[in-house]
Amino acid sequence: MDAIQDHYPDELAHCFGCGRLNEHGHHLRSSWNGEASEARFTPRPYDTALPGFVHGGLLASLVDCHGTGTAAVAAYRAEGRGWETAPAHRFVTASLRVDFLKPTPLGPELLLTGRVRSISGRKVVVEVAVTVGGTTTVRGEVVAVEMPESMRPPSRSTPAG
Amino acid sequence: MDAIQDHYPDELAHCFGCGRLNEHGHHLRSSWNGEASEARFTPRPYDTALPGFVHGGLLASLVDCHGTGTAAVAAYRAEGRGWETAPAHRFVTASLRVDFLKPTPLGPELLLTGRVRSISGRKVVVEVAVTVGGTTTVRGEVVAVEMPESMRPPSRSTPAG
Repeated sequence: MDAIQDHYPDELAHCFGCGRLNEHGHHLRSSWNGEASEARFTPRPYDTALPGFVHGGLLASLVDCHGTGTAAVAAYRAEGRGWETAPAHRFVTASLRVDFLKPTPLGPELLLTGRVRSISGRKVVVEVAVTVGGTTTVRGEVVAVEMPESMRPPSRSTPAG
Repeated sequence: MDAIQDHYPDELAHCFGCGRLNEHGHHLRSSWNGEASEARFTPRPYDTALPGFVHGGLLASLVDCHGTGTAAVAAYRAEGRGWETAPAHRFVTASLRVDFLKPTPLGPELLLTGRVRSISGRKVVVEVAVTVGGTTTVRGEVVAVEMPESMRPPSRSTPAG
């Protein structure tokens, strides 16, 4: 399924959590099911907190990237255009909250679901749930803001000389 | 310098973020300077969000582990005993909040500082700051709780037969 991260511009696609061009990263991919965003991730055996449970830092990382991805989806939708159109939306996180409702068992695939709570100007608030085997183990909230120009890498299309 | 994670029991020392026995992990080590906890971590080149900046998920992960480590230090101190004494304290995260005040530049060593905000029963609230080159870029709050018995791995000292 098509994912928002597939459409991040190359120069903004190196995030460890969700950048397709980060060869060491998690490559999280967030799609849109018509009502909410979804992403799936299967932790590796060493992504552990206490034995048998998923590392909270990994869960926070997945919530974060799925939240900013969902914010970008929401921004395109608010403008009535597809994520394959320019200019590209790319969000960063201003604030992240993660509530660990119960331990997340290590092994099965995790499902992340994102719902847009509000859009105002450059700010999008996204609620993310992590479920495993039908049980929600984590709830998160991501306050995402459109990437400031000060974070934009130098464009590769600028003539070198 | 001695670190709280050096004293986690072997069966509880596999956390990806701070477990000394996780061969793939970050091996964060949190010491106590008399007033606050400190940990240092130098991100790798691929721990990136947007190019030039540290991945927010990594920062959340470091805040999380430094927070639970600081909670354990606080618990020993509240009991007037050293972290080398038994029984061991080991905390898990109930809730994590991370505010990204400004982008964290990728390259220099990060300093994490943890301060105990409250201790009540099995719950410790820790405030964590991430500073780089003297500038605080991240503030976090970790609500840590003593690990529930349901998360304890089977003891290796139990006779097998």
